[in-house]
Amino acid sequence: MADTNSENEVVAFLGPITSYTHQAALSRFPESQYKIVPQTTIADVFDAVQSGSVTQGVVPFENSSNGSVIFTLDLFADLQDWNPDIIVCGEIYLPIHHCLLGHVSKEDDAQSETTQSASKAKPLHDIKHITKLYSHHQAWGQCNNFLTTYFKGIERIDVSSTSKASELVSQDTTGTSAAISSRMAGDLYGLGLLGENIEDMDGNSTRFFIIRRRDNKSTNNTPISDAVAETDAEHARYKTLISFTVSHGEPGALAGCLAVFQKFKLNLTSINSRPSDEATWHYIFFVETMGRKRPDGQGAVNNALKQLNGVAQSSRWLGSWENALKA
Amino acid sequence: MADTNSENEVVAFLGPITSYTHQAALSRFPESQYKIVPQTTIADVFDAVQSGSVTQGVVPFENSSNGSVIFTLDLFADLQDWNPDIIVCGEIYLPIHHCLLGHVSKEDDAQSETTQSASKAKPLHDIKHITKLYSHHQAWGQCNNFLTTYFKGIERIDVSSTSKASELVSQDTTGTSAAISSRMAGDLYGLGLLGENIEDMDGNSTRFFIIRRRDNKSTNNTPISDAVAETDAEHARYKTLISFTVSHGEPGALAGCLAVFQKFKLNLTSINSRPSDEATWHYIFFVETMGRKRPDGQGAVNNALKQLNGVAQSSRWLGSWENALKA
Repeated sequence: MADTNSENEVVAFLGPITSYTHQAALSRFPESQYKIVPQTTIADVFDAVQSGSVTQGVVPFENSSNGSVIFTLDLFADLQDWNPDIIVCGEIYLPIHHCLLGHVSKEDDAQSETTQSASKAKPLHDIKHITKLYSHHQAWGQCNNFLTTYFKGIERIDVSSTSKASELVSQDTTGTSAAISSRMAGDLYGLGLLGENIEDMDGNSTRFFIIRRRDNKSTNNTPISDAVAETDAEHARYKTLISFTVSHGEPGALAGCLAVFQKFKLNLTSINSRPSDEATWHYIFFVETMGRKRPDGQGAVNNALKQLNGVAQSSRWLGSWENALKA
Repeated sequence: MADTNSENEVVAFLGPITSYTHQAALSRFPESQYKIVPQTTIADVFDAVQSGSVTQGVVPFENSSNGSVIFTLDLFADLQDWNPDIIVCGEIYLPIHHCLLGHVSKEDDAQSETTQSASKAKPLHDIKHITKLYSHHQAWGQCNNFLTTYFKGIERIDVSSTSKASELVSQDTTGTSAAISSRMAGDLYGLGLLGENIEDMDGNSTRFFIIRRRDNKSTNNTPISDAVAETDAEHARYKTLISFTVSHGEPGALAGCLAVFQKFKLNLTSINSRPSDEATWHYIFFVETMGRKRPDGQGAVNNALKQLNGVAQSSRWLGSWENALKA
């Protein structure tokens, strides 16, 4: 039965159609219940959510092989104050399997060489005719072993999405280019499968954030009740994202901010830094911790935020949400 | 007078010719004294240094607007143990000024619109004919305000270098593409200047690392004498890069490692994380601190490294070098 409360909800995602973000969005926001709309850039997704033209957005945050999506971090850093109301309200993990897609050579001997290499994947067909590779920037880092082994020195052309890479290869009449893309995109553009599961790591996956405005209590948001007492088990159920800047001239300022989390026994799960435009070589830091900011104001995350406020030059709570990796 | 000791030194840098890394390498290794050779990728520079085929290498490490160069971080993370002997022995700061380069339209009215925008730079000529932009991945983030203001929704094609972008635009007979590149590359390829200093930040600059093998005492390396006592002034003269991993299941493990630096009053100047291939969603952390590992084994950095060794799951000293930003 469709959730009648979600009827008017529009969810923006980083397109184009068949992108990995599209697949992530569909997994949480089925088209039977939500209107989901592609956007050209991650910034466009933030804009749509901030302006209220959509109720929620889905953006990539980090890949298990390739690390953070810096465009998303910078939109959370929000140095221009364009997205003051945006918080994270959920996360989606999606397994990522990349394929090498292109034209199968006519002289294909259907044999791939056996090499001693770090790459477990091997080409399924002859690849000697491939002189050019198209993909999205993030995909190269996720297929590093395969590329180093079989495509050393071959030019890589970054395009706006892995789907776009497949489209471009389908239009290349010389047949000498190939795309690193999803099987779904390869099917859409009628490309041959030259390699599959070419990602370096078993379990390669991307984490996406669901974002909303602070004042938009969407039906899809995790209901967080204060009735549950703060326990270790409750901590592990939630995650929180916080950004802060430090006073540049003060030795130990960064370590001092991080000590706040240790004091309240919060388990930091990741830390990142990005340039702050305050001055050259100043940074904004992002920490993610287990636990949540409780609406009742009582709890380790709430206390850490208060104390951080006194130690950091500036700090901002960027949302708490239910941990999608919990057992 | 040429330094006779440097005659046999070969220095690898991230090419191609006229790249920003080339300009950085020339500033420290004049061609009158050194043989400097371009490499296709940052990994190739590391390979050349590790194998001993060159004595030193120059690689980009971070840009003041766009942050870390993740390819370089991953080569220092060295998860495959390909570069066990490489350390940083110096740094070079280079001011970066990007230009918009392309064909000047025949209907050019030589007027640029005045807009209320975050971008201080304006196009110098009509840009309505531009439908496609080429540049290196890092350049987009450095020119974000200009691009958001004047090229919203225009397709961006990432190529292997800003120099390559200029070359491609010079070959585009339709005249509808433009490159974000250096003036030097634009001159080389005969492109028109459609915009200059289009980078977001005044003082936009890139920091490059000079790398060498631990066992290669190159003439260009900073002489570090133990005769100087460890003082605050001495601390500020040097920087040190350290990587470490933490035990994943232990709450507060990351904060515990960082507390070591605070204990020895080391001023952390940056922190980064990258995926560790130990397991999905595990990380390797990089911290940079003022101070140096002293050859006499006595000093705050030496002590912090020893203590970190007991707290972290693994840790590695990645070099100490003279601070090029000191007064």
